[in-house]
Amino acid sequence: MSKTPGEFELIARLTAKLRRGPGTLLGPGDDCAILKPARVRELITIDSMVEGVHFRLEWGSPEALGARALTVNLSDVAAMGGRPTACVVNLAIRPGLDARFFDRLYAGLERAAEAARVDIVGGNVTRAEALAITIALVGEARGGVTLRDAARPGDYLYVTGTLGDAALGWRILDGRIKARGAVRRYLIDRFLNPVARLAAGARLARFRPAPAAIDISDGLWQDLGHILERSGVGAEVDAASLPLSPAYRAVAGDDLALALGGGEDYELLFALRAEKSPAELGRRLGVAVSRIGRIVRGRRARLVGADGRAAPAVAGYDQLRERT
Amino acid sequence: MSKTPGEFELIARLTAKLRRGPGTLLGPGDDCAILKPARVRELITIDSMVEGVHFRLEWGSPEALGARALTVNLSDVAAMGGRPTACVVNLAIRPGLDARFFDRLYAGLERAAEAARVDIVGGNVTRAEALAITIALVGEARGGVTLRDAARPGDYLYVTGTLGDAALGWRILDGRIKARGAVRRYLIDRFLNPVARLAAGARLARFRPAPAAIDISDGLWQDLGHILERSGVGAEVDAASLPLSPAYRAVAGDDLALALGGGEDYELLFALRAEKSPAELGRRLGVAVSRIGRIVRGRRARLVGADGRAAPAVAGYDQLRERT
Repeated sequence: MSKTPGEFELIARLTAKLRRGPGTLLGPGDDCAILKPARVRELITIDSMVEGVHFRLEWGSPEALGARALTVNLSDVAAMGGRPTACVVNLAIRPGLDARFFDRLYAGLERAAEAARVDIVGGNVTRAEALAITIALVGEARGGVTLRDAARPGDYLYVTGTLGDAALGWRILDGRIKARGAVRRYLIDRFLNPVARLAAGARLARFRPAPAAIDISDGLWQDLGHILERSGVGAEVDAASLPLSPAYRAVAGDDLALALGGGEDYELLFALRAEKSPAELGRRLGVAVSRIGRIVRGRRARLVGADGRAAPAVAGYDQLRERT
Repeated sequence: MSKTPGEFELIARLTAKLRRGPGTLLGPGDDCAILKPARVRELITIDSMVEGVHFRLEWGSPEALGARALTVNLSDVAAMGGRPTACVVNLAIRPGLDARFFDRLYAGLERAAEAARVDIVGGNVTRAEALAITIALVGEARGGVTLRDAARPGDYLYVTGTLGDAALGWRILDGRIKARGAVRRYLIDRFLNPVARLAAGARLARFRPAPAAIDISDGLWQDLGHILERSGVGAEVDAASLPLSPAYRAVAGDDLALALGGGEDYELLFALRAEKSPAELGRRLGVAVSRIGRIVRGRRARLVGADGRAAPAVAGYDQLRERT
């Protein structure tokens, strides 16, 4: 694709300082990057963040934006139980953003890449009307992989961390929900600085039989639906067991709508054949774990109360349920 | 990233029919695709086409657009002498495009992928203000690779095919240049339906020493500049030897501006240590080849006339030369 000299300079500057590990034979600067032969199965995924759709620049720092663009991809590799290794980055740039902005964006991206031991091996810059960061990430699957289609009736459903915080943070940032002080800061941070559960995912992939797993990017209900659809099963989710942070409760009280339907948490949802206590699982996975229900026969997800009966409808949840 | 049900349905429909080869262990539908261990060095590249920047929908069919989005990536693998194997596709979709449009876009993409024996192993759909197709492509480098940094003083410079046709086609489409009949159709076709020189690139990679090579996506002068910069050399290009199609001459006469500065040709530019006749090279590479100059000491590219003196300035060319 034809480029202007400014686009070349930007690519060159952004990629000049990148450090790379031994898996990368040739980094940015040629037509392709070259990676060492993968001796194990390779994972590959692509994800994109678009200005005005997934973020606004005034919401956070360029560094956080760069890191988050990688994290959403890392989370896909975590959900498969893999180890991320290398990525290529496509930046769609718009007028009005200066070199300093892109340096900071890339600094955040690099920091996240280094923390995850991922090499940024190539990049491309194109003009556009809105800023967009599209990253393709490759990784290794050494042992088992945790797939969406592995859930079986009787499996126990677990989730890492807490649910709905990022969705609240997003709504605080765009003014739809009000919050103050530490609660506000915590929720916004959960949206702007998500963490991919790479270590937990890799440990899950060692369980036998391999658990079904997915990362919660679109909201628990929607992502549970993907597991149910691929596995050909149903689920009962215990409304009282959904892990909510104190900040979530402070803002939303008992309203489960965003815990069920909000996205951007990047926690892991998984189904295990053997019942394990959340405390034991938490120790093994290195992250807080909650048991939230079971896989059942059928094709639908049901939210049940403490009495085992269907819980009352929750705003924003019934409509999503219809998808499963 | 949060998705609407419509986005899910679109991903599911677009990826449902994809056929995949034995290198793909798991295709679309999970968090990542899974590829067989590569065993040889792996190539990876990413490129993007943005509506309003690289194309307009009224210029050609959705099928051609889908095919072209892959071809620009295939060309990067061709320039390294590799064999493309798998790709992941990020579609940024805007309002106003219907399911039929995306079916046709994907049909063209699939046809191009099948012709190149590339598996489409994953996809992502996101909302945006403008349509954009971003593809990350992986491939194999079995034997040698043809890099930008391998040119040495004394090497002979060659190019496949003809130059500037696509740039003329682009300008005809957006009304900046007028042409009629077969000439018009030929030039527009060269822009809308470029061909990646995969077979020629793979054969070049068997030459010893491995040639320097690049694909001409940004225009001969700019892409030659990348070889010179990476190799630390200069070049003399013989103005009279630039391969121009009859259609180019019919529209632009002797004006070399777009042969030198126009992009989108996706021909290969390469530098060989040994002098070979273009006819012999053409037979070995399976495509027409022209010898256009030599690599020299220094850091600059010079365009020379038949008398060996600097050729007169060409519109649109001097400014580009300053980059090298």
